[in-house]
Amino acid sequence: MKFASDNNGPVHPKIMEAIVRANEGHVPAYGNDALTAAAKDKVREVFEAPEASVFFLPTGTAANSLILGSLTKPWETIFCANFAHIHVDECHAPEAFTNGAKLTPVGKRIDKFNSEELESAISAFSPENMQQSAHGPVSVTQVTERGTLYTLEEIRAIAQVCRNARVPLHMDGARFANAAAALGCTAAEMSWKVGVDAVSFGATKNGAMAVEAAVIFDPVLAVEFRRRQQRAALVFSKSRYLAAQMEAYLTDGLWLELAGEANRLAALLEDGIEGIDGVKFAFKREANMMFVWMPRFVHRALMEAGAYYYIEAGELEGDDPHEPLLGRFVCDWSVEEAGIARFAEVAQAARP
Amino acid sequence: MKFASDNNGPVHPKIMEAIVRANEGHVPAYGNDALTAAAKDKVREVFEAPEASVFFLPTGTAANSLILGSLTKPWETIFCANFAHIHVDECHAPEAFTNGAKLTPVGKRIDKFNSEELESAISAFSPENMQQSAHGPVSVTQVTERGTLYTLEEIRAIAQVCRNARVPLHMDGARFANAAAALGCTAAEMSWKVGVDAVSFGATKNGAMAVEAAVIFDPVLAVEFRRRQQRAALVFSKSRYLAAQMEAYLTDGLWLELAGEANRLAALLEDGIEGIDGVKFAFKREANMMFVWMPRFVHRALMEAGAYYYIEAGELEGDDPHEPLLGRFVCDWSVEEAGIARFAEVAQAARP
Amino acid sequence: MKFASDNNGPVHPKIMEAIVRANEGHVPAYGNDALTAAAKDKVREVFEAPEASVFFLPTGTAANSLILGSLTKPWETIFCANFAHIHVDECHAPEAFTNGAKLTPVGKRIDKFNSEELESAISAFSPENMQQSAHGPVSVTQVTERGTLYTLEEIRAIAQVCRNARVPLHMDGARFANAAAALGCTAAEMSWKVGVDAVSFGATKNGAMAVEAAVIFDPVLAVEFRRRQQRAALVFSKSRYLAAQMEAYLTDGLWLELAGEANRLAALLEDGIEGIDGVKFAFKREANMMFVWMPRFVHRALMEAGAYYYIEAGELEGDDPHEPLLGRFVCDWSVEEAGIARFAEVAQAARP
Amino acid sequence: MKFASDNNGPVHPKIMEAIVRANEGHVPAYGNDALTAAAKDKVREVFEAPEASVFFLPTGTAANSLILGSLTKPWETIFCANFAHIHVDECHAPEAFTNGAKLTPVGKRIDKFNSEELESAISAFSPENMQQSAHGPVSVTQVTERGTLYTLEEIRAIAQVCRNARVPLHMDGARFANAAAALGCTAAEMSWKVGVDAVSFGATKNGAMAVEAAVIFDPVLAVEFRRRQQRAALVFSKSRYLAAQMEAYLTDGLWLELAGEANRLAALLEDGIEGIDGVKFAFKREANMMFVWMPRFVHRALMEAGAYYYIEAGELEGDDPHEPLLGRFVCDWSVEEAGIARFAEVAQAARP
Repeated sequence: MKFASDNNGPVHPKIMEAIVRANEGHVPAYGNDALTAAAKDKVREVFEAPEASVFFLPTGTAANSLILGSLTKPWETIFCANFAHIHVDECHAPEAFTNGAKLTPVGKRIDKFNSEELESAISAFSPENMQQSAHGPVSVTQVTERGTLYTLEEIRAIAQVCRNARVPLHMDGARFANAAAALGCTAAEMSWKVGVDAVSFGATKNGAMAVEAAVIFDPVLAVEFRRRQQRAALVFSKSRYLAAQMEAYLTDGLWLELAGEANRLAALLEDGIEGIDGVKFAFKREANMMFVWMPRFVHRALMEAGAYYYIEAGELEGDDPHEPLLGRFVCDWSVEEAGIARFAEVAQAARP
Repeated sequence: MKFASDNNGPVHPKIMEAIVRANEGHVPAYGNDALTAAAKDKVREVFEAPEASVFFLPTGTAANSLILGSLTKPWETIFCANFAHIHVDECHAPEAFTNGAKLTPVGKRIDKFNSEELESAISAFSPENMQQSAHGPVSVTQVTERGTLYTLEEIRAIAQVCRNARVPLHMDGARFANAAAALGCTAAEMSWKVGVDAVSFGATKNGAMAVEAAVIFDPVLAVEFRRRQQRAALVFSKSRYLAAQMEAYLTDGLWLELAGEANRLAALLEDGIEGIDGVKFAFKREANMMFVWMPRFVHRALMEAGAYYYIEAGELEGDDPHEPLLGRFVCDWSVEEAGIARFAEVAQAARP
Repeated sequence: MKFASDNNGPVHPKIMEAIVRANEGHVPAYGNDALTAAAKDKVREVFEAPEASVFFLPTGTAANSLILGSLTKPWETIFCANFAHIHVDECHAPEAFTNGAKLTPVGKRIDKFNSEELESAISAFSPENMQQSAHGPVSVTQVTERGTLYTLEEIRAIAQVCRNARVPLHMDGARFANAAAALGCTAAEMSWKVGVDAVSFGATKNGAMAVEAAVIFDPVLAVEFRRRQQRAALVFSKSRYLAAQMEAYLTDGLWLELAGEANRLAALLEDGIEGIDGVKFAFKREANMMFVWMPRFVHRALMEAGAYYYIEAGELEGDDPHEPLLGRFVCDWSVEEAGIARFAEVAQAARP
Repeated sequence: MKFASDNNGPVHPKIMEAIVRANEGHVPAYGNDALTAAAKDKVREVFEAPEASVFFLPTGTAANSLILGSLTKPWETIFCANFAHIHVDECHAPEAFTNGAKLTPVGKRIDKFNSEELESAISAFSPENMQQSAHGPVSVTQVTERGTLYTLEEIRAIAQVCRNARVPLHMDGARFANAAAALGCTAAEMSWKVGVDAVSFGATKNGAMAVEAAVIFDPVLAVEFRRRQQRAALVFSKSRYLAAQMEAYLTDGLWLELAGEANRLAALLEDGIEGIDGVKFAFKREANMMFVWMPRFVHRALMEAGAYYYIEAGELEGDDPHEPLLGRFVCDWSVEEAGIARFAEVAQAARP
């Protein structure tokens, strides 16, 4: 019953084996080894983007921030969702890496925005006005921070607004694989084919130990990336161990397999609690994460039974057993079906 | 014959086993797991510093920059050796993490400086002059960038100058273990007992995959560290895999054992080439790294025989077979004795 | 009919005379002259704050940014109104001077917020969460960017919230004098007596050439200010010419006299156009600035008659003569009554 | 006997009159007034550079830092003299405005360097090495910080090295006028005609109140300047008062006239003390500033007689009356000949 985070799960055996396999002899450091080159090629292959610039980073915030740093001037503002990870969960890393750019939340929903909202947000800033923010890149999160998805059509429409405004489009893909698996599309179809210019391609939450790829489709936008990475203390000396993870992750479709499994387990969990009295999904579950309102007494029963997850809104302590509290539930590939079944059982059996 | 870098070597089996061992089930992310807590305690134990603040980072530049960022105001200057890694090899990461501090090289030698030189460098800046740099921390590198060492007495004298000037003393210990092994002293004796306030305690070059510890003896100096780390995109979600490395590294003295072995192998290499006609040590070898002038024809013979190392000064191509070129040779624990013997053989047999 | 900005007006003769009077002989540079000392004392006297730290700056953005830089860590967020000058009109100067802090807009209104809204905004960030923004200072603008005022009671309530949250309270007082004149209170009553910790005390918009004072009531908060000012290229060598302006501005209550006159002229303008068909005040006029919806044909008539002011919303060009466009009207002390009368006349006489 | 600084002198009457003359009615703010446009044209005319981008700033550090910020990436190093103002007297403003670039001192002399030294300094950094600093702009100071000059030929040779290395050449011309007057050349001859790409053109030290022009010959290099200026809080609202100074300064050659007069007075001072026993010029006087070793007893006699200047090396207090102390003497146009005569008299008459 461990649904706290896909960051809490273990490394997939195939990825761990690849790390162990890479542990042989002396090889050049700082990314000049053959395995790093091969893994970068693999990323380009999966994205069907032979010209793309690819960099391996150990954290998602690093990938986001270095990409945004490359795309944004200090006086520009980045357009993103209200609850975008880059805006509310990275302790100002984007501000630091851009030397002081702003982030402008777009739209009414907290998880995502649409092309009309983006157009309106962009047009609120006049490029001629030197006192205001200038137009910077747009960033979408796929899967969003509330577990929902952008359709390919929605991304395409957003990209069109970006093109009109001459700003680049970034995708925070910490859960890129879960989205692609859910949409049943390829990496290319969910990125450059619908107008995305750069992707933070996550692997850590989906079975890797610590590796994300910054994928920038137009290499011209990446000419300074390596300098920025070095200056940010984010160049690994023993690069082969990052590369080995990514290589294994992309071999034989492991990335989609693990994400599909995580999504399937989340759907199981959804099925198990749907329909329980007082249980209400805050957002439609579309991938491997869901936000669910449940009465306090249900949460209590679950916690007492050993379930491990976060309560996002409300306090477990409190008088009213029926007060709804918002729980966040995330599945990775390693979550056990038995735990899901037990969870549903406890939730269904809970009484005030 | 692989002497290019201790960054090129593999992970020690005991450390790799610890990583694999940690790969079990779900545990809290972002450093809130038991293994991370245990590994931090281990660091405190090894340093005999129960109050110290400890943070795990994936690169040496990260440890250096976050520590210096914590100790330095943007208008202060950091005092360091002419060839300090923080000054010449980190692509301005210290400047970035301090938001624009300077680094002031101290002394005549390129690798290290003494307390008199430091005193003179500090006194060149008047604290009352608002246009000049203000006094910032002092940073020593142990082992130095040229493979030499500070004696404990030298560090103590430098620390005294720091105390007089009321500035903290940082030690870049990317090769801390090699120094401690060479000096035959404990971690405490080489750090806080001689007045060091913060250490970048390296493991990556000495058998780990990617982990360094920032050790700050006075926790008051570290209150902002975690925020800085987060903002720098340097907090690992799956912290247990960093912790596992450090835990194994510090168990049963593995860290000193590996460093001692690396030093011993370097001494073997030194023995093998000392006395060859035209071979001249640029600096006394004191740990696991040496810089050696050798005639071009010797370098050529070695390269042709498959040796792998860097030429720091001069070009392999060139007419004069006797022109001395500066080679850099580093040993880690994994270097093979047979390779060393072969290297010496080739060097001795080389003819113009 | 010049109502575009109080930045467009001339320097008051008494201030210009003081500048000319200061132009005598050699005096120490960089603020070490007697006139600078005297002018700082005058500021302390007017604010009844003998311990306050005072610095002279040439622009309002400089005063705001240096104060906020002194009060804010890079990972903190500043709380301010939606249309605060620091948020929307300073091209990220606050972000630059704080090395990447955020600004969080507070409340429903665009011009100001109340203590309940502030409390709610602050409590949305948990100090324990290392991924979110930390709590930074609160900033109120007095006169607000829409020409309205905070009452002393409102400021006191906001200050109480700040004290509870242990964050400082800054006042952007680019039009401090106009507010004090309108409220009929002293500088002290509108600042530290109601809990304000630091004021950007403007003079430029109210008859000076280019001088603002950063007034920080607790000198401990200002210990780094001079370094920050120097590093920001904002220390005048010939400081006496800044000081002379401020000295004259504060002598014999000139600052309140000019502000009172500006307010009176704005009230005249208000009277002149109030009640005209289709004219609607977007905000209550409370000092020397007002935002007024007027039909397009009225704007056209005024512009044709030579009026000079900004249209904040809508376009002068357009088919519908009755479409309301938002005009901004600002008076300084130098605006002519005849122009106001003429303006009212033209507006009243305008026909579609 | 006021020789402490050309920053201590008054504003020239013609410049003050121009300020007063500009004080008429309402004009657009933020540089959109006719006087600002006219003054910029005047700068372009004096520099014979009709395409140049021109910006007015209130301090020399602002001009230097904004130009260097425009020309330098955070990972680049700026090449300058050991005692360049940007390196030792601006409290890290260049580091702040470039977001963390370094400054690399060039050459053996403290005041200036030559093209060979520059070539050697540049070639010490390899553009392929991602860990080192990348090549940034070169900055020369004319008049240097020790009162000496670069000849046009020297500048041309330095510019050639810059072109070869593909880096721009900046001139810190806080005393540009004094240099041009001393060399008898035009503004164009001392700047773009010998390969300078951008000039900080000073006026404040030479009779203005507070105005410097950033002159960038290729407007492409200046496209971001206005944004940078705004973000740095360095855009004056009442721009006309900066413009009025510059306009008057450049009218009828006033700038060269005042500088020539300052140089002449400095030569007089030089004549008056040359040859006195124990008096030794540390650098050849070439413009309006000189550094002179004089025995302690001479300094004491001067100070007692009311002379005002700085002692750069050594302490006035001390036992040995013959110990040489280094005095700095600067003349502006307003220094009185009688004071110079008296100074020489006192110096000549001084006895141990």
